[in-house]
Parts: sequence; C-alpha cells; structure tokens
Amino acid sequence: MNKYPEIGITELSGGALAPEGFVAGAAACGIREEGRLDLGLLLSERPAVAAAVFTCNRVKGAPVVVSREAVGRGRVRAVVANSGNANAATGRRGLEDARAMQRLAARELGLRPEEVAVASTGVIGERLPMERVEAGIRRAAAGLGRDGSGFAAAILTTDTRIKQAAVRVEVEGAEFTVGGTAKGSGMIHPNMGTMLAFLTTDAALEGETLRGALSRAVDRTFNRITVDGDTSPSDMALLIANGAAGGGVLRPGSPGHAAFEEALEEVARRLAREIARDGEGATKLLEVVVEGAPSEEDAARLARSVAGSNLVKAAVAGEDANWGRVLTALGYSGAGFDPEGVEIHFGPVLVFAGGEPVEHDISAANAALGGEEVGIRIRLSGGSAAAAAWGCDLTSRYVEINGSYRT
Amino acid sequence: MNKYPEIGITELSGGALAPEGFVAGAAACGIREEGRLDLGLLLSERPAVAAAVFTCNRVKGAPVVVSREAVGRGRVRAVVANSGNANAATGRRGLEDARAMQRLAARELGLRPEEVAVASTGVIGERLPMERVEAGIRRAAAGLGRDGSGFAAAILTTDTRIKQAAVRVEVEGAEFTVGGTAKGSGMIHPNMGTMLAFLTTDAALEGETLRGALSRAVDRTFNRITVDGDTSPSDMALLIANGAAGGGVLRPGSPGHAAFEEALEEVARRLAREIARDGEGATKLLEVVVEGAPSEEDAARLARSVAGSNLVKAAVAGEDANWGRVLTALGYSGAGFDPEGVEIHFGPVLVFAGGEPVEHDISAANAALGGEEVGIRIRLSGGSAAAAAWGCDLTSRYVEINGSYRT
Repeated sequence: MNKYPEIGITELSGGALAPEGFVAGAAACGIREEGRLDLGLLLSERPAVAAAVFTCNRVKGAPVVVSREAVGRGRVRAVVANSGNANAATGRRGLEDARAMQRLAARELGLRPEEVAVASTGVIGERLPMERVEAGIRRAAAGLGRDGSGFAAAILTTDTRIKQAAVRVEVEGAEFTVGGTAKGSGMIHPNMGTMLAFLTTDAALEGETLRGALSRAVDRTFNRITVDGDTSPSDMALLIANGAAGGGVLRPGSPGHAAFEEALEEVARRLAREIARDGEGATKLLEVVVEGAPSEEDAARLARSVAGSNLVKAAVAGEDANWGRVLTALGYSGAGFDPEGVEIHFGPVLVFAGGEPVEHDISAANAALGGEEVGIRIRLSGGSAAAAAWGCDLTSRYVEINGSYRT
Repeated sequence: MNKYPEIGITELSGGALAPEGFVAGAAACGIREEGRLDLGLLLSERPAVAAAVFTCNRVKGAPVVVSREAVGRGRVRAVVANSGNANAATGRRGLEDARAMQRLAARELGLRPEEVAVASTGVIGERLPMERVEAGIRRAAAGLGRDGSGFAAAILTTDTRIKQAAVRVEVEGAEFTVGGTAKGSGMIHPNMGTMLAFLTTDAALEGETLRGALSRAVDRTFNRITVDGDTSPSDMALLIANGAAGGGVLRPGSPGHAAFEEALEEVARRLAREIARDGEGATKLLEVVVEGAPSEEDAARLARSVAGSNLVKAAVAGEDANWGRVLTALGYSGAGFDPEGVEIHFGPVLVFAGGEPVEHDISAANAALGGEEVGIRIRLSGGSAAAAAWGCDLTSRYVEINGSYRT
C-alpha cells in the first residue's frame, strides 16, 4: 500500500490501539438490545495532547458540547462512548447526563473529568439510561487492555462491521504509529467532523500542530464522504497524541511532521472509505475523482455533488452507467466549470467529452458499475487541481431501514 | 378555495387553456413508447408578451438555450414541447435540433421562429429523432383546439397524472384568468425554474411587470419543492400574457396588478404541490411550514431543508414521527436559529419544544403521517416571517424507478 516510498509507511492492524500507550475496554450494558456491546472506553496510559473537530449542525448533541469544552483545555486523553442513544435534543437534563458520564469515566480511570471526551450515537431525543451507563463504564474500565475490537464494536449503530485503520511511519529521526477507529452508516454527510472517529498516535506533537493536521486530514477525508446528505448533530473526530513512541516533538517543517500528516490523512481516508462503503443499505463503495479543476476546493465540491446525488446513487445500485445524471450533478454543484470541457469515465470507459456523448460500449460502461468498488472519473479543462469524494449506492434497503428506525 | 375574499378568485378547470385566446394540440409521434402522447403545441391566437425563468444548472439543455434567446426578444406566444428525450448534453447537433424544432413549429403555426419557445424532457444525452418530431409537430398543429389535456399529457415523463390549475379573477376594473400546466416527477429540486411549467393569462401586462410577477411567484412555489435534490438541466417556467380578456394593461400599484400576482402565485403553488405529490415513487405530499423566522428567505431555507432530507422522507414513508430528523435537518440548513426556541408539530401533535422532547402520544403523532397529505409545522422564536416547502416521501419505488430508468 505504500503510496509514499520516500517516507516508509507500513500498514498495521489494531486500529486505534496500534500506537503505543493506548488501551481500551467495552461492555454490553443494555442501552441497545440485550448482549450487544454498547459502551466503550479508550485511554492513553500517559498524559496526552488532543485536537477535535465537531459537527457544524446548529443542533449539537450534549456530548459534543461537553467534549468541545474538554478538548478546548487541551488535555483530553480518554473517551467514553456509547451507541444506541445519541443524547441529542435532550435539553438541560441531557447535558447533565453527558457531564455525569464524563465524571463517572474519569473516576474509574483515575483522571480529572476534563481529561475525558464523551461521545454518544443512536436515537435522537431520548434520555440516556444512566444506571446502565454507570454499570457499563465500571465493567469497561475493569476490562481495559490492548485489544481494541470491543471498543470498535461498541460504537456501531446500523453499521455492519467495525472500522479500523493504522499505519507505522519510519522517517529520518522519527518512528511512530497513527491509528483510528470510526463508525458511520446513516445521517452521514459530515461537515467538519464525522459521525464518530477516534484517531490516536504515539508521536509527540504540540496542540496547535495537532489541530492543524487534524483539520487538514478531516477536510480531505471525512468531509468528502456522504451517505444520505444528512449532517448529524453528533459528528466528532478526535485525535489523541501521547508521545509514547519516544521521539522528539514533531514540529512543522520537519520530515517527521510531513510524514505524520501523510500518515494521519491515510488513516482518516481509510476510515472514511469504510464509512461510505458501509452506508445504510449500501452494496457498493462509490469513488468520484474530479481532475483538472481550478482549485482543490472546486474539485471537492464537484466530486461531492456527484457522490451525493440520489439519482447517481440509484443508477449505481442499478448498474446503469447513466452519465447524464453525473453531468447534471456537476452542473448544480455550485462550482464553475465549462460543460464543453468535461470528460466522464465509468471505470475505464469514456462516455462523454466535448459537450457530447462519446460512442461507447454501453455494456462495458455498465459492467464498470458491477463490482463492490465503483469509480467515476471526471476530467475538466479548468486547471490542475484534483479531489476525490466517496459515497455509496442508494438501495431499497436504505429506505426500509429508515422507514422503521425507531420501531 | 377563495383565500382572498377581497379580490374575488374563482377556481376554474382547463389549465393553461382556461384563459381566453389560447389553443393547444398534441401528437403521439414515437419519441416515447408507441401510442403515448409525446409532442405538444401551445399557442396564443394573438400576439403576446412572455417571461420565463430557467434552470441555474451550469449544464443547460439545448431547448433552454433556444428558449432563453426567444423569450429575451419578448414576443414568445407559442411553445413546442416533447417528452421522452431532453435534448440535453447533445452538443452542437442538439442545438441545431432544438432550432429546427423551433422553425418547424413556427412554420406550421404561421409565426416567426423567435415567437416559439422549445422545451424537451426525458432521457439526457441522446439525439432527438427529428423526422418523428417533424411529423408530430405537423399532426399537433392540425389538431389545435380548446382542450388542453392532450398537451398536458404530452409533456409527462414518469409523472403518473397531468397537472393543471386555473383561477378567474374579478377585481375593480379588471377581469381575467390565469392558468397553467406542468410536469415533474424526478430530478426535481428547482432552482429558478422547474422541470416544465407553462403559465398563461388573458390579462394584459408589459414585459417587465410580467417578469417581476413570474420571478416572485416561482420563488415562492416551484423553487420550494423538492423530490430528490437533483436540479435538472431542463428546468423552465414560461408565462405568456395575451391580453385577450380585453382589460387595460395591469400596472404595478393597481388593484388589478395585485390580484394578478396573487392569482399567478395561487396557480403556480397548485402546480408545484402537484409536482411534489407526484414525485417519483411518492405516496404522500409533504408540506413543511416554518413560522417565526427572521426573514422569509430563512424560513424557506429551513422548510426546504426538512422537505428535502432523505431521512425525513423515509420516516414519512414509514409513518414514523421521527422529529429528531426534522430538528437535524433544520440544523444543517445553513440558516441561523436558536434550537432552544424550536417547536415541532406533526399534524396537531406538538412533539418538541424548549430544547427537549415534549411528552406526547406517539401513535397520534405517527397517525398524523398516515394520510396522503402530511403536514410538519415548525415554530421558531426568531421573528415573524413564514414560508412553506413541499416534498414527498422516499420509497423503495423511487430507487427501483431510478435504478433502471434507461433500461
């Protein structure tokens, strides 16, 4: 997988626990159906620095409010997270519950409350069952260890599988690991965060450096995926750096810092793709690449518009290489471009160029939509910037899941 | 239906032909499946003034380009329209075809080409079968008459029924009629126009007055509906005023002008609601009303965000009063508001207020989603402006229709 041979990036298993000095635990405490893991703890065993980005939705879940305060103090080294209940739109009492969750986790982990971030995902508008949450925190803390798969499972909602990624970096003067775990599925159209992503590293970085790196990585990864265009009130991407790898502080301008940014983006991109692939009801990962744009921002806006079009997504589900819908979605993206200079490819098949359809083998174009990963590539004539966005197909299953989510 | 007792508005049948001095014809010429009406002509028997709004999509179908030029000259009095083929993304030859369609219709109707607007709707990216189009124009012209139902049928694509509306206005010093016909179904998220809407009046108005009235009416009606968030390259709303009612010119500031604007908005709103109701796969019309906003623009943005949310629409299909999704869609609309000041009603049932869920009978709230017309009302604490938006439910049928549209 090494896209950066000059840096030396190696893929690892272990997700958020791949870096040194992190442990995690999980419990099934009955917030969701009997027996399903629904509460998790993630902890850096040593003091750490953290950065986070949160949803831009005006409506923010109570955990977002509490975690933002904690991360603002810069010393977060643990997360308590639950699925099955988002603790959003729950008013003052919901905020008290989120703070109680933070305090309970801090007590079990021997930390101050402001060292703990809180995350909740699931149904909106119901109070958390706090007795169960308390029991779950106690059990998860008792089982802390170096296996992160329980934590990765405890944060899932309608996701069908856990999402983990990690890479090890060796670069002159620095060796460190970046890892992460995430959940997605529905209400996925992140704007400055994603449903939930927890990223870790054993590199040493200062707060401001960490914030810059996270912001850039999120903008190119989690902010480029869409499942249904609905931006959740619970979106959160948190990055904890604990320096356990033993190297010096990675400062901007150093090779170690550049490698860190590459590695962080790589881990975030893998998690983002897994979220898109596992969108509610999805059977295919859709990757839309736009090249030849005047700016990366324009390219990203165009790519995201195509990846988010209900009509494109339904056509991908039906394995119909309907390029008219791709062109239309480019046209309403809000980004400027010359329609005469657009080329559209489904997989290897060029279907549109110079303002007109290109004669092509329709069954070959449809076949390019046949696999579990579908690529649509668009070349513009406006510059040299490029960007990718990721989505999934729109199936009847999405409609079924969301017609009866609460019942 | 009289919402304006001081004006005297009466509902009429007859759609775009209800006003005096308009005739229409239609033909089945084989652009679509055998035997289905697919080409229509609409004509003012006397010279007229026209105004139009067109799609904001950067990609514009050839008919949009040709019609914009014609309307720019201010003398359009006829429309030639076909379904089954959008003549969009067809390059220079597509533009030549649209101009040929305009010339052929002008010849049959005894007009100059610039007096004819052209509209095409259907599959994107295929050349029009011009021999069939020519034969269809000849047959439609031969059958021109005072029954507009053939024209209303000839412009439909996946629509399940024709869409017509008309009202007669009596106000001091003026009597006139406003009518219209439209088509919608999929790729409906209008921005400055709608899929296709043809509005007529026998009132006399000058071009600038007409343009202002159309722009205001479209902004409050067609620009407030959404089926799937996809803005088509073929959107067009055209208004022709022929003065056949015999009254004087309606100038801004006169009671007749005010009544005309009300009547135009009423006709456009009815057509817009019918388009939303007949969205692809839809079983329900969804009306979202936002009140208490600082401006009508904010209220409209919030209402449209809720009406366009895939998750809200899937919940409406499932008759699940999932207010958390409504609140979430308000939150990502881009409009500012205080979440603590939001009240959400499903039909008569208040479900959320003061930042917290309100105890309510869930089965009564779900029952409010049971009919063919569903109302969600949102009260904000930010001002006194209000707006409505219209959408439909998201069903598996939408996915099926659009997974196999071309095949």
